Amino acid sequence: MKRNVLIIGAGGVAQVVAHKCAQANDRLGDLHIASRTLAKCEAVIASVHEKKSMKVQGRFDAHAVNAMDSAEVAALIRKTGAQIVINVGSSFVNMSVLEACIETGTAYMDTAIHEDPKKICETPPWYGNYEWQRRDRCKAAGVTAILGIGFDPGVVNAWARLAEDEYFDTITSIDIVDINAGSHGKYFATNFDPEINFREFTGTVYSWQKGAWAENRMFEVGQTWTLPVVGDQKAYLTGHDEVHSLSARYPHADVRFWMGFGDHYINVFTVLKNLGLLSEKPVKTAEGLEVVPLKLVKAVLPDPASLAPTYTGKTCIGDVIRGVKDGKEAEVLIYNVADHAEAYAEVGSQGISYTAGVPPVAAALLVADGTWDVGHMANVEELDPKPFITLLNDMGLPTRIKDAAGDRLVSF
Amino acid sequence: MKRNVLIIGAGGVAQVVAHKCAQANDRLGDLHIASRTLAKCEAVIASVHEKKSMKVQGRFDAHAVNAMDSAEVAALIRKTGAQIVINVGSSFVNMSVLEACIETGTAYMDTAIHEDPKKICETPPWYGNYEWQRRDRCKAAGVTAILGIGFDPGVVNAWARLAEDEYFDTITSIDIVDINAGSHGKYFATNFDPEINFREFTGTVYSWQKGAWAENRMFEVGQTWTLPVVGDQKAYLTGHDEVHSLSARYPHADVRFWMGFGDHYINVFTVLKNLGLLSEKPVKTAEGLEVVPLKLVKAVLPDPASLAPTYTGKTCIGDVIRGVKDGKEAEVLIYNVADHAEAYAEVGSQGISYTAGVPPVAAALLVADGTWDVGHMANVEELDPKPFITLLNDMGLPTRIKDAAGDRLVSF
Repeated sequence: MKRNVLIIGAGGVAQVVAHKCAQANDRLGDLHIASRTLAKCEAVIASVHEKKSMKVQGRFDAHAVNAMDSAEVAALIRKTGAQIVINVGSSFVNMSVLEACIETGTAYMDTAIHEDPKKICETPPWYGNYEWQRRDRCKAAGVTAILGIGFDPGVVNAWARLAEDEYFDTITSIDIVDINAGSHGKYFATNFDPEINFREFTGTVYSWQKGAWAENRMFEVGQTWTLPVVGDQKAYLTGHDEVHSLSARYPHADVRFWMGFGDHYINVFTVLKNLGLLSEKPVKTAEGLEVVPLKLVKAVLPDPASLAPTYTGKTCIGDVIRGVKDGKEAEVLIYNVADHAEAYAEVGSQGISYTAGVPPVAAALLVADGTWDVGHMANVEELDPKPFITLLNDMGLPTRIKDAAGDRLVSF
Repeated sequence: MKRNVLIIGAGGVAQVVAHKCAQANDRLGDLHIASRTLAKCEAVIASVHEKKSMKVQGRFDAHAVNAMDSAEVAALIRKTGAQIVINVGSSFVNMSVLEACIETGTAYMDTAIHEDPKKICETPPWYGNYEWQRRDRCKAAGVTAILGIGFDPGVVNAWARLAEDEYFDTITSIDIVDINAGSHGKYFATNFDPEINFREFTGTVYSWQKGAWAENRMFEVGQTWTLPVVGDQKAYLTGHDEVHSLSARYPHADVRFWMGFGDHYINVFTVLKNLGLLSEKPVKTAEGLEVVPLKLVKAVLPDPASLAPTYTGKTCIGDVIRGVKDGKEAEVLIYNVADHAEAYAEVGSQGISYTAGVPPVAAALLVADGTWDVGHMANVEELDPKPFITLLNDMGLPTRIKDAAGDRLVSF
C-alpha cells in the first residue's frame, strides 16, 4: 500500500494526470504537483477545483522545483511525504527524478525515455543508455519504477503482453499504429512539446525486423492502414520508445511503430529540417547570439495546451499483432479510440494529452493497492496487463479488439 | 572632379563593387573598403589582387567601421580622403552613412532604401520616411546623393527615364520584371542577405495603380512573363524600392514590380512566414532567451556569397513600358541578361550581386568626371540615363531593347 502522489511537470499531460489523480484521491491520498514554474502548477490545481475533480476533500499543493536537480526533487519528496512519483515533465529530467526516487525509496513512473538535450536518437535500445543502467539499484532498493506508462509507450505495451498471454502461441509481428484524425484548426502545431515531438523525427528511424535493428529515414517508409472509426490513414515508420523494450521481450517478432502524418505536416517538417531549424545544436547569429534553432521553433509554435479548447475529432491508437495460435496464423487489432472534445470537457486537455495522462494514474492506483508495486524496474510488458486494462476501461480509455470474431470491448 | 572611393560593406555586392572600382582605379583614385568585420574587407581586397583587377598600381585599404555610427564613418572619410562613398552595407546603415557624407561634403550613393530594423514595409512612399527628409540638407551642402543606384532599383529607373526621353510622349505603365533563372544547387538559399530579402516579402505589397497606392499580399497576384533568353517565367507583384520614386515622377502611369519565384521558394517562404519565423520582433524561448526569428533564419541559411562558385544560369531583368508615341499605343521591353558563371569568373560573385554591384561603380565614374555630380539628392530617373547606359554597356551589363522594330543593343 502506497499513498500520496507527486506529479512532476505542469504541461498538457500533467493537467490530465492531475484531474485523474483528483478523481481517485480517495485511494491516492495527498496530491502534489511541481514544475519549474509555480504558476503553471497553480493553474493546473485551479482547473481541478473548477471542474470539481477532487473525489473527496483532500490536499493538492503546488511546488516549484528544478527537476534536473535530484537533491531538490528528493527534498520535495521527503517534504510532501509522496510515496508515488508520476514524472510527466520533459524527457530531459527522467534520470534526476528517478535518482531522487531511488534515494528516497519512492515508486517512480514516467511516460517516455530519458533524453540528453544535446543528443538525438542514440544507439538502440535507447533504454539501455539510461534507465536500464539503474535496474540493479532499483532492485537493491526495492523501488518500483515503471517505465513508459503513457499510451504509447504504455498501453500499447500492455496490449502486446495481453496478446502474448491470451491470443497467440507465437507472436511474429507487432505494428503499433498511432493516428490522430483530429483537427486543431491552426496552420501548424504539435500535440506535444514541439522540442520532444521533432526530436523523435530528425534522427534515424530504428525498427526491429528479422531479429536486428533496421535503420530508415523519417517519412521513407509509409503505409495506409484501415482502422476503426478513423478509416484509411497514411502512417510512416517512426522511431519510438516502445520498440526499444518490446524488441527485447519479443526478439523473434518484427516490432515497428507507425505514426500518421498528413502531407501538410510532412511539408512543414521537411522545410524546417532541411533548413537546419530543427537542430539541437546551437548556431550563432550575425550579432553573435548563440541560439538552439529547435528551441526557437518551439517558441514560435502554439503551446500544445492552447489547442485543447477547439480541438475536434478522434484519435485511434492500436497494436496490429500477427502470430500463430493453435498452429494457425492469426491477426488481431487491439485499439482505443479517444475523442478530443470529450477529453477537453472532462479534464480541460486535448485527446493526445488525455491518452498519455490517464494510464500513469491507472498505474499509480495499481502501485497504491500493491498489484503493480513490484519493487523493481519494469517496462509495461513485464507487468500483468489485465488489472491495468480493466481500470482503463472505467477511466475513459476502453480497450477494444478486432479480429476474426468481430470488434468488441476487451474485459475480463 | 571627385576622386578616392570608400566602399561601405563587405558582402557579395561589395565584392563586385571592389573589383569594378579596381578595374577603373585610374579614374577613381585611392580605394577603401570598410565594414564591421575587418577580415571580410581584407578578403575582398585579396580577391581583387588575386584576379589582378587593379587597372593601375594604387591603394586599396581595409578598415573596420561601425556604420551605424555616423561620427565614426565621418572620421573614416576624413582619414581616407574619400570624395565618393558607395554604400553597399545593410539597408539599416543608410541614414548614418548619408549623415556622415553630408557632414563631410562627400558624394553618397546606395542601392536600397533605408530600413529601420524594427519596422517592415512602412507607409509609402518609403523614400519619404528617411532619405527624402535629407533633400534640403544635401542641397544646402551641395552634396550629391544618388539613391538606389543598383540594378533594381537603379538601372531599371534609368531605363524608365530613357523611355520618357526617347520612346514615348506619354507613359501609361511601367512593369519592372526581375527573373533569376539561375540555379544555386542548394535546398534553399536567398541571393541577397536573407534578412533583407525576406523583409521585402513579409509586409504589404505596395504598387502604384490608377494614381494611388494599391495594397496586396505577397504571392497574391502572379503573372507569367515571356522574356528573352529565360523564356516564360512566373513572377509575382512585389513591393520594391523603385516603385516609391518612379510613382512620384510618373504619377499618371501604373508602376509595378514583379519578381520571379519558383513554387519551391514560395513553399519554403510560406511555411517560415506562417510559423512566425520571418518576424523581426523578438520572441522569448522557454529558457528566457530573446531571439529575433529572422536573424536565426539568416544564420541557418547559406551565406549568399557562398553560392557563387557553383551558380549556373542567367538572370533577366527588364522594364516593360507601355505608353503613347505619336498618337499610337506602343510597348517596349528594355532589359539586360546576366550570366552567373561569367560574373563569378570575372569578379568572384554570382550574377545577382554582379547586377547590383556594377551600376554604382558606373555612377561613381560619372560623379568622378562631373557628369552626375549634381550637388543634390537624386533618384536615378532624375539623372541623364545615356552616359550611364553607355558606361554599363562596356562594364558587363549591356542594355537591350525589344519592340516592334526588333531586339537590339541600346547605344547612343
